[in-house]
Amino acid sequence: MLYLNEKDINKCITLNEIMDEIEKTFILYEKNKFYMPDRIHVDYKNKTILYMPCFLENIFGTKFLTVFPENRKKSRPVIDGLMLLNDYDTGETISILDGKTLTALRTGAVGGTGIRHITPKDVKTVGLVGAGVQGFNQLRFACEARDIEKIIVFDLFKEKLPDFIQKVKEQISGVEVVSVENTEELLKESDIVITTTTSNEPVFPNKKELFKGKNFIGIGSYKPNMREYPDALISVLNKVYIDTEFAKEETGDLSNPLERGLLKDNQIETLGNYILYEKNKEEIIKGTTWFKSVGMALFDIVVAQLIYNKAKEKGIGQEIEL
Amino acid sequence: MLYLNEKDINKCITLNEIMDEIEKTFILYEKNKFYMPDRIHVDYKNKTILYMPCFLENIFGTKFLTVFPENRKKSRPVIDGLMLLNDYDTGETISILDGKTLTALRTGAVGGTGIRHITPKDVKTVGLVGAGVQGFNQLRFACEARDIEKIIVFDLFKEKLPDFIQKVKEQISGVEVVSVENTEELLKESDIVITTTTSNEPVFPNKKELFKGKNFIGIGSYKPNMREYPDALISVLNKVYIDTEFAKEETGDLSNPLERGLLKDNQIETLGNYILYEKNKEEIIKGTTWFKSVGMALFDIVVAQLIYNKAKEKGIGQEIEL
Repeated sequence: MLYLNEKDINKCITLNEIMDEIEKTFILYEKNKFYMPDRIHVDYKNKTILYMPCFLENIFGTKFLTVFPENRKKSRPVIDGLMLLNDYDTGETISILDGKTLTALRTGAVGGTGIRHITPKDVKTVGLVGAGVQGFNQLRFACEARDIEKIIVFDLFKEKLPDFIQKVKEQISGVEVVSVENTEELLKESDIVITTTTSNEPVFPNKKELFKGKNFIGIGSYKPNMREYPDALISVLNKVYIDTEFAKEETGDLSNPLERGLLKDNQIETLGNYILYEKNKEEIIKGTTWFKSVGMALFDIVVAQLIYNKAKEKGIGQEIEL
Repeated sequence: MLYLNEKDINKCITLNEIMDEIEKTFILYEKNKFYMPDRIHVDYKNKTILYMPCFLENIFGTKFLTVFPENRKKSRPVIDGLMLLNDYDTGETISILDGKTLTALRTGAVGGTGIRHITPKDVKTVGLVGAGVQGFNQLRFACEARDIEKIIVFDLFKEKLPDFIQKVKEQISGVEVVSVENTEELLKESDIVITTTTSNEPVFPNKKELFKGKNFIGIGSYKPNMREYPDALISVLNKVYIDTEFAKEETGDLSNPLERGLLKDNQIETLGNYILYEKNKEEIIKGTTWFKSVGMALFDIVVAQLIYNKAKEKGIGQEIEL
């Protein structure tokens, strides 16, 4: 059994390879070539455990995550866990991967793949709302997907910004990084806007003119009580692109305007369907676009399998004697 | 993170230490000092995955099992998997144990603990119906719990018996091991009878006189459509002892006679309650007794924690770099 920790995973694979794989996964989702049971939640005393199983045609696996909000106070990652990869025929666990690294990379790559498909090739500026681990990873992938010259960051907790900006500067070369005082300013200065907050209220002012012609990547809101985008965005959009059909119920960014009739079901389309069948992409990306992701176990198993195969090929990882 | 494989686990701990711990677990169950969510099943194309989470007051964990019946044809274990042990405060996985070894040992120890409590000290013969991995483990623990002189084995598939008997003779010293032609003969010759089959029909003839004065340990039937014991056993009993309240629904050995009114709810008692509060044990074990186990995640987490602590103490296992 092969154990792959954070270092191993980062040695195995490039960001573009992960985005290529995520792109294939959007197609796989449309072709329905997988079995993905419902995500399983166990909640106990402010601790959450998630089990995310998924079967492909030649492998299966489970992402096991712990979400412990109180870790923040201890300067430990809130999300931790493991990805188990299993032999399709015998059930044997063939590999275990660090779950927080996998989650960070695949979520970053999902956002980056969104950028590849719903933004013009010549965008130069990215605005990020939410200066956390996931925000950082979104920026890494955004800067691979497009030739970004400037990053604009906002976070409600300003004291986080100097360290965050320092880290971005160190890890992403050749890009200017600045912070702004509010999200209105951020909207004005950005071509692409990425949100990675855990907000329950929209993080932007509800003004139509601020949203027009921009490309939005929504990552944060993953529960029905969470919302990052105001009604104004929806009023200037034709369509919202999503990663999985479950997004309609899972995120307040969709369920809330759907319930109020502001957003219609036929305005929501999976990114896979758009990639496969949309003929008007050139025109669409010139307007306002929004990709809203909630994530799914299918991304994890596909990316984990790729990382495992690369690790075997390159002789990376710790071999555990069974 | 410490990985403990089969060899490591067997080096860490003795069978009696595991039975002592299981005994404590029966008490823990009565005192309700744990949180055990429902066992989670995922079924797909004749493959079953189980997630069995459980929280104690200072640790939590998940037993992850794969049940692949087709492995039998490939001479691979049908049940495989891993036990994850996690830090209570941070969620971090601190240890991974081989799940099939843990399952085999804790299930054997649950049966053995039953023998400690519902059989007279001077029993000399054990009959086993079901010559598989679990049958073998039940015998190992039975021979620790009592001074057994003779083992009598029956299996519907006679061709399995020579190898099984050979294995028992090699691993359990100083005990005579024989096979019989049918379960009636087995009942006549045994003081204790253990069943570890996956039968859907009772494996014994429905004759009262065969059951009187004997002690039964039922391990096999763990689904409502499975049954190992005929009505005759129930008709000569005062009470059935169970490991968990869920047994009433989970095993056909109880749900079937309960539905038909043959067995009354007040005839069913947890072994923990019996250990703690029964004053008439001496008298009871002279009559016919039955302990029916279906297993639960609480056993796994308690035994896994003990094994982990012993392994740390003795410097056993493979340390994985995170």
